[in-house]
Amino acid sequence: MLKGLTRAGLGTIGSDEQFLKLASDAGFDSVDLSARALIEQYGEQGAIELLQRYNLRLGSIDLPVEWRADEEAFLAGLPALTEAAAAARKLGCTRCCTYVLPSTDQKSAHFMALATRRLRLCAQILGAYGIRLGLEFVGPHHLRTAWKHPFIWTMQETLDWIDAIGEPNVGLLLDAYHWHTNSLTVADLENLKPHQIVHVHLNDAKDLPVEQILDNDRIYPGEGIIDLPGFLSALHRIGYADFVSQEILTPSTPTESPEELVQRSKNGYEKVFAAAGL
Amino acid sequence: MLKGLTRAGLGTIGSDEQFLKLASDAGFDSVDLSARALIEQYGEQGAIELLQRYNLRLGSIDLPVEWRADEEAFLAGLPALTEAAAAARKLGCTRCCTYVLPSTDQKSAHFMALATRRLRLCAQILGAYGIRLGLEFVGPHHLRTAWKHPFIWTMQETLDWIDAIGEPNVGLLLDAYHWHTNSLTVADLENLKPHQIVHVHLNDAKDLPVEQILDNDRIYPGEGIIDLPGFLSALHRIGYADFVSQEILTPSTPTESPEELVQRSKNGYEKVFAAAGL
Amino acid sequence: MLKGLTRAGLGTIGSDEQFLKLASDAGFDSVDLSARALIEQYGEQGAIELLQRYNLRLGSIDLPVEWRADEEAFLAGLPALTEAAAAARKLGCTRCCTYVLPSTDQKSAHFMALATRRLRLCAQILGAYGIRLGLEFVGPHHLRTAWKHPFIWTMQETLDWIDAIGEPNVGLLLDAYHWHTNSLTVADLENLKPHQIVHVHLNDAKDLPVEQILDNDRIYPGEGIIDLPGFLSALHRIGYADFVSQEILTPSTPTESPEELVQRSKNGYEKVFAAAGL
Amino acid sequence: MLKGLTRAGLGTIGSDEQFLKLASDAGFDSVDLSARALIEQYGEQGAIELLQRYNLRLGSIDLPVEWRADEEAFLAGLPALTEAAAAARKLGCTRCCTYVLPSTDQKSAHFMALATRRLRLCAQILGAYGIRLGLEFVGPHHLRTAWKHPFIWTMQETLDWIDAIGEPNVGLLLDAYHWHTNSLTVADLENLKPHQIVHVHLNDAKDLPVEQILDNDRIYPGEGIIDLPGFLSALHRIGYADFVSQEILTPSTPTESPEELVQRSKNGYEKVFAAAGL
Repeated sequence: MLKGLTRAGLGTIGSDEQFLKLASDAGFDSVDLSARALIEQYGEQGAIELLQRYNLRLGSIDLPVEWRADEEAFLAGLPALTEAAAAARKLGCTRCCTYVLPSTDQKSAHFMALATRRLRLCAQILGAYGIRLGLEFVGPHHLRTAWKHPFIWTMQETLDWIDAIGEPNVGLLLDAYHWHTNSLTVADLENLKPHQIVHVHLNDAKDLPVEQILDNDRIYPGEGIIDLPGFLSALHRIGYADFVSQEILTPSTPTESPEELVQRSKNGYEKVFAAAGL
Repeated sequence: MLKGLTRAGLGTIGSDEQFLKLASDAGFDSVDLSARALIEQYGEQGAIELLQRYNLRLGSIDLPVEWRADEEAFLAGLPALTEAAAAARKLGCTRCCTYVLPSTDQKSAHFMALATRRLRLCAQILGAYGIRLGLEFVGPHHLRTAWKHPFIWTMQETLDWIDAIGEPNVGLLLDAYHWHTNSLTVADLENLKPHQIVHVHLNDAKDLPVEQILDNDRIYPGEGIIDLPGFLSALHRIGYADFVSQEILTPSTPTESPEELVQRSKNGYEKVFAAAGL
Repeated sequence: MLKGLTRAGLGTIGSDEQFLKLASDAGFDSVDLSARALIEQYGEQGAIELLQRYNLRLGSIDLPVEWRADEEAFLAGLPALTEAAAAARKLGCTRCCTYVLPSTDQKSAHFMALATRRLRLCAQILGAYGIRLGLEFVGPHHLRTAWKHPFIWTMQETLDWIDAIGEPNVGLLLDAYHWHTNSLTVADLENLKPHQIVHVHLNDAKDLPVEQILDNDRIYPGEGIIDLPGFLSALHRIGYADFVSQEILTPSTPTESPEELVQRSKNGYEKVFAAAGL
Repeated sequence: MLKGLTRAGLGTIGSDEQFLKLASDAGFDSVDLSARALIEQYGEQGAIELLQRYNLRLGSIDLPVEWRADEEAFLAGLPALTEAAAAARKLGCTRCCTYVLPSTDQKSAHFMALATRRLRLCAQILGAYGIRLGLEFVGPHHLRTAWKHPFIWTMQETLDWIDAIGEPNVGLLLDAYHWHTNSLTVADLENLKPHQIVHVHLNDAKDLPVEQILDNDRIYPGEGIIDLPGFLSALHRIGYADFVSQEILTPSTPTESPEELVQRSKNGYEKVFAAAGL
């Protein structure tokens, strides 16, 4: 598996190049950031060279389309999606992800129909560029009632939704936090095929009853109670060999320096990967 | 438009041939019944001749697949669907319909995902046989809370769902009762294109506040308060020229003879079509 | 039906506004041009006002994607497609068309597979903006061997291809010239449903054996041998009520003034529509 | 990888149970046969017990649909497809395969459109039952001109076709004979992802120039000139861990006893798997 970083959890880093340098210095294999922004800043050739210089790959870009609001907002994002996909392709990035909130102010069934159509189109466009779309189910219990109507939050619901979307390039973004807050087990992971997983997020949870765990209160891998060795070794066992990106959502920006935070992340990764026998 | 009958509302008729004879004697253009059952009873050639003898066309068959329950029940119906579609094709029937209950005991969003996948497959199979699939939204208010969670019941939701299903041969089954219980207007119909409408049901409602109208308490066209002339003339204006089938769901089987009930239906049709200027 | 003009056959007109003025002065209902270019020149509001001032609608835009060459060229066109579709939507245009050459230098079956995938994606993107995609089969015999391998050129092949593409918003662009050079009949048109036709081109052919008719040697409606009254009345009979755009491809630019050429077009339209009883 | 047998190359075996016994005695892991026929002979429970008794899995069923001829023949096969898929599912078989002839008497591009639509529907139906569809490209040169028009025969063309079909459950049936007769290399296999491969056929070729190799002149693994160790080790390297079924098409039925032929097959498998380091 490839160890990766997102900016989430690393404090105030500054430029993308600084982010790349930090990740590279700490021995990470990949970063998740906007390919399009990288090319806009450094040019296509410059961006490619930057990634080569720091020996980093791009794990995933974020889906730059507002598929949760109204139709005008959705359509307004499609030109940017084609540009984002073209940029990702130029930088060898083949993954694009979005998260699925577990409740909604819209009528659930109707919103599911709208979202199915919208995400299918996103997947179709991404597929033309050789990019897969990862859907992240979101487990924390408080979000299930944060908006008026329940939507979906379990892995099985998300797999069923992926079937309903029906495109070959759609799969899961599997986040350890949501695996934990859904009370999923190692056996649940072992039922997956590796190509059902588009991307993986790594982070840890405080020692709280699962119902009390907040979405933006995550901690560094190895510092909490999630069975990350079980999580990682199960992924390895089923043949998943791709990116595992840290994403630490916190209530406020950490005050340590990015260097300290990256080091902490590195230590966490080493600890849990070692415990997983990887 | 072609005037059609279903058995619903005609009492206890007996054989399919008796149903055909009744419909024919009263001057109707079509009947809705199972093409497969007709062929099983009379043979393919016999069924064709029967329809010719009575100068009737088959309007629509019912979708013979349980798409609302679990996956096993759904799969168990697919062989029958291919047989039903093949039979419909042999008898020149190009429509197949199913209704959508406005609430469900399953989680709404998840059920929408499952139902989208299932009805898409039904549409794909039907499409191979040149048959369109009509989805009937169901308006009565009491059914919106008859099961645990709200599903969908409006025309717009259903159109959005048809888009999510994404197959070219899916459209609306437009039932005057559900048009009325959704408080829809002539203008709502005028926004439709004729090919969005797969089939039409005709019937009337008692003079009750719309919130109190029960689904299985329908009456004969022209005997109630639905603006059927407005309904029919709007359909004509947008270019709809296909079947309009009577479907009278009642709390108990009518006690009049089928002959009397068909005559009553005929009178109702003549009245509302005349009032519509058709 | 709505009478429309393309620039093809009108000589050297100058600006889009001049084109609009010419079309309007001659009483045409619509023009086919690039919605995106119109908005780029006059602004969104300016373009809308221009169309209102001249009482014209936009019939169809051209598909701005190179789907016949290699994959890079195809992908390079997708951002422009989203922009073109967004522009068309802003101006109320719901049609986009492309032509299908009847032979190809690529292996036929393989190219069909590639083109199916590419045009499906174009249709999917256009569909999100409420735009239909029209595929124009191209009949002239000389083009069937102009490249190494035969592709498709008949209406039936194109309808079968539309089924293979499988999107609800794809249909035919029906060009009278290709109807004629395919030796199609009025009965062939009568077998169509109106929603299978996305757009119509009108023009005429010289009095030559059908095998000798050249694609870019077209003449004005009513000046040649095509049974345009039969063509138009059949379209009317099946319920087609949308745009009919003139497209006169000629070996060299006509020398008459645009005013004369538009008048000639107007006379041609009046003649053949009158002969069709429309 | 799982070692499997088809009946092709084993002479005249007799009943399915004898086939299972032969395969089991020789230590094979799987057989390819009709799940539906097995259930029809032995009952569902009997068929399950038979497979358990002989410790065998079902590798793949054949697609029981005529997709290469006319539409009536295609439609006539769909009920059988649903029955075959239901039977396969009952016996835990998740693969269904068909071969693609490299030339055709139909116009190539048109046939590609028809075949795309037909195989998409087959894939959609199979997918509902959790079954994948494998398409076998066919390499022998003599078949490329055996019918009027070239169709497709390369792995890349087939992958592009799979993209055009566009369903998540379609992939390659990779046959060592067609890999060889297409002059493909180990590197070509290494470019594949394991989930792109639905099924694998193993057999060997005589020492002839590749252009002269006949499709039905195959020999047992390890007795010919195909680099089967390279073939198998490449599949292992990319992570393919599923069925590898022998299929020996010969000009006439072998005269040796099935016992001798299965032993010969076993020896061949052992030889080439050992040479592949597996």
